[in-house]
Amino acid sequence: MSDDLASLVTAIARRARAASLLLATAPTAAKDAALAKLADLIDGAQAALLAANARDLASPEAADQPAAARERLTLTPAKLAHLAQSVRAVIALPDPIGTELEAWTRPNGLRIRKLRVPIGVIGIIYESRPNVTVDCAILCLKSGNACILRGGRESFHTNTALAALIAQALTAAQLPADAVQLIPTTDRAALTTLLRLDTLIHCIIPRGGESLIRYVTQNSTIPVIKHYTGVCFVYVDRDADAGLAEKILLNAKVQRPGVCNAAEQLLVHAAVADTLLPRLAAALLANNVRLRCDPASAAILARAQLAHTAATPADFTTEFLDLILAVRVVDSLDAAIALINRDGSAHTDAIVTRDPAAAARFQAEVDSAVVLWNASTRFNDGFEFGFGAEIGISTDRLHARGPMGLRELCTYKYVVDGTGQVRG
Amino acid sequence: MSDDLASLVTAIARRARAASLLLATAPTAAKDAALAKLADLIDGAQAALLAANARDLASPEAADQPAAARERLTLTPAKLAHLAQSVRAVIALPDPIGTELEAWTRPNGLRIRKLRVPIGVIGIIYESRPNVTVDCAILCLKSGNACILRGGRESFHTNTALAALIAQALTAAQLPADAVQLIPTTDRAALTTLLRLDTLIHCIIPRGGESLIRYVTQNSTIPVIKHYTGVCFVYVDRDADAGLAEKILLNAKVQRPGVCNAAEQLLVHAAVADTLLPRLAAALLANNVRLRCDPASAAILARAQLAHTAATPADFTTEFLDLILAVRVVDSLDAAIALINRDGSAHTDAIVTRDPAAAARFQAEVDSAVVLWNASTRFNDGFEFGFGAEIGISTDRLHARGPMGLRELCTYKYVVDGTGQVRG
Repeated sequence: MSDDLASLVTAIARRARAASLLLATAPTAAKDAALAKLADLIDGAQAALLAANARDLASPEAADQPAAARERLTLTPAKLAHLAQSVRAVIALPDPIGTELEAWTRPNGLRIRKLRVPIGVIGIIYESRPNVTVDCAILCLKSGNACILRGGRESFHTNTALAALIAQALTAAQLPADAVQLIPTTDRAALTTLLRLDTLIHCIIPRGGESLIRYVTQNSTIPVIKHYTGVCFVYVDRDADAGLAEKILLNAKVQRPGVCNAAEQLLVHAAVADTLLPRLAAALLANNVRLRCDPASAAILARAQLAHTAATPADFTTEFLDLILAVRVVDSLDAAIALINRDGSAHTDAIVTRDPAAAARFQAEVDSAVVLWNASTRFNDGFEFGFGAEIGISTDRLHARGPMGLRELCTYKYVVDGTGQVRG
Repeated sequence: MSDDLASLVTAIARRARAASLLLATAPTAAKDAALAKLADLIDGAQAALLAANARDLASPEAADQPAAARERLTLTPAKLAHLAQSVRAVIALPDPIGTELEAWTRPNGLRIRKLRVPIGVIGIIYESRPNVTVDCAILCLKSGNACILRGGRESFHTNTALAALIAQALTAAQLPADAVQLIPTTDRAALTTLLRLDTLIHCIIPRGGESLIRYVTQNSTIPVIKHYTGVCFVYVDRDADAGLAEKILLNAKVQRPGVCNAAEQLLVHAAVADTLLPRLAAALLANNVRLRCDPASAAILARAQLAHTAATPADFTTEFLDLILAVRVVDSLDAAIALINRDGSAHTDAIVTRDPAAAARFQAEVDSAVVLWNASTRFNDGFEFGFGAEIGISTDRLHARGPMGLRELCTYKYVVDGTGQVRG
């Protein structure tokens, strides 16, 4: 059984590798034709997709899910229409492949060009949301990468139905159907085998909770690009505009508290904490945010008779993903930078200040993927950056950092033209 | 004991992380001052370094090494002078840090800049050659990265003496001495601990043989940049100039057969094999190259009465690192491309042809880091590319591919300036 599974997964990876070599040089028009066909197929197959989804929702695995997870798992006609639209949106994006990134000529006459090319075969390991099947497949396709999809047990039938449409769209556009393959089992042993096929698969992107990402990282010999969650800070400097601070902090905390670029931590400079913190706290409390305070901020809020609780040490490094904010008073810009570099997750951090020198120091010394001055942390996002698509927000430093669009799914090769040069 | 080791290694990594935050914004002048001081210290400490090296050479581990490994381990006054010179050469290289890679403004007025920054903390795991201690330390230093060095048992005393000079040079330049630290033990358990410190160390670069790289890849939860060896091809097309083919092939095979960018595999188009192959084989044989042939090439060489043996299947995927070449005849450019993508290692491959269309197809469809037209495979090299330095040749596709210089030791961050922007 285990041998059979290993053969099955290895055969899928071999076919993906072969398909990737064809897809790497496929014309943009063919890739876009497959995308157009897929969008039409999704529109035309609503009933079948909803039926597959109903089977998943009726399964014991789905019944065990909390309400929020069941909601993510559930397809609706509106969600499917949105999915088809997101496929069409990728047609409009420029093809990243073939771009000349650099070119130069050496003294010996060798002409060197650095060209953007696909990575090759990408494995996507994900959990409940079936739209990931399509989201990841279309971004890999447009960037010329073959992909192997391994979804969750609770969305197996939906994923299978979507994968069949993708294969049909690829074939219609005369592209290899093996360029997008779904692992036809959710057996953990199949995943473990997949994660060791480092001669056939070039990159693994896990999309899901921390335990999934950790399992993948610890078991993969293939390079992994991680999308861990964010412990994001807003630092209100001594020279902050009060209105701007309130507006940015509220947006960062409450506009969508369950995502990785929402603020979890507030630092306020001691010189303005007495006046600013009560105003900020009142605005947060009016939006149902609970405040977990260090002694200095607790004393200020107590004097102002504003609700708060004492923070535990763990609160200062926690990603709450909820309407909770940890609050501290700091004595200086230096202290703020040091705390963020110590307690944060190097994801997204913002300073609110009128002082350009303070902003410049913050942005240079805070060691995070995105460092903002007078703007909400919520802008660390592929769409907000203008990438037109997003496969995730990388928390790694190698290859891609921050929002990952089509270009971040590419690598490069060096094309060298000579006239008989040899080394002496 | 094991707990002590784990604490020791973790403490080193914590100090490296703290040092990396200081080094990330250190001025170029300070980094260059440390390099200048180090070069002078190496010049001034020749006697002490040779004494430390003599201790290593007298150890049982060194006695067990084959002659070539002992030669790599052995320092001489000339090698030390060369080492000091290589440190001075890095002073002359441009500082990669702070460069604006891209900048754009969003419709909402957000100004986004993508700036090159250091990766953070890099772990270098290496074997016998003690010069790696200095080579890696100076490239990490110039690129603003802290590094943790874990060298081999057989060069322990030499590495320790060199690391002491590096610390002295850092201190003299008022940079943190913890920016370069040598693990003061070669216990395997210390390495295993190091490879799991993924919150403190951001990248591992193993430099050594395949078994070392494999051990690191399988045990690291930190991203690894691999420098595997190369199964490099030269393909002589039907339209090749005979003289050019001979010159390029000879250089690729014999100029330095023991390195990763030397040619190991020859493919010759069937249309010209009868005339060209005997000429190429004669030139190779005159340079003591042994030929391992497929049946078609063997038949041609037999008719020409040129020495050769029959290849085994394994020969066609082998990196010989020796004066041995596997030879095959192919029926077409397509067949050559398919064989290279199947049997090669995606490292460095060359086509010899007068036909620009054949060259373009070869360079587009061969899925390797460096694809050359009418030039020797030996040019896949950081110095030959003009990078001025090289920490290795990456065989990975993520982050860095091919020669790695200072820029490839960097990542980027997004610096975003707003005027109160929030998400709607």
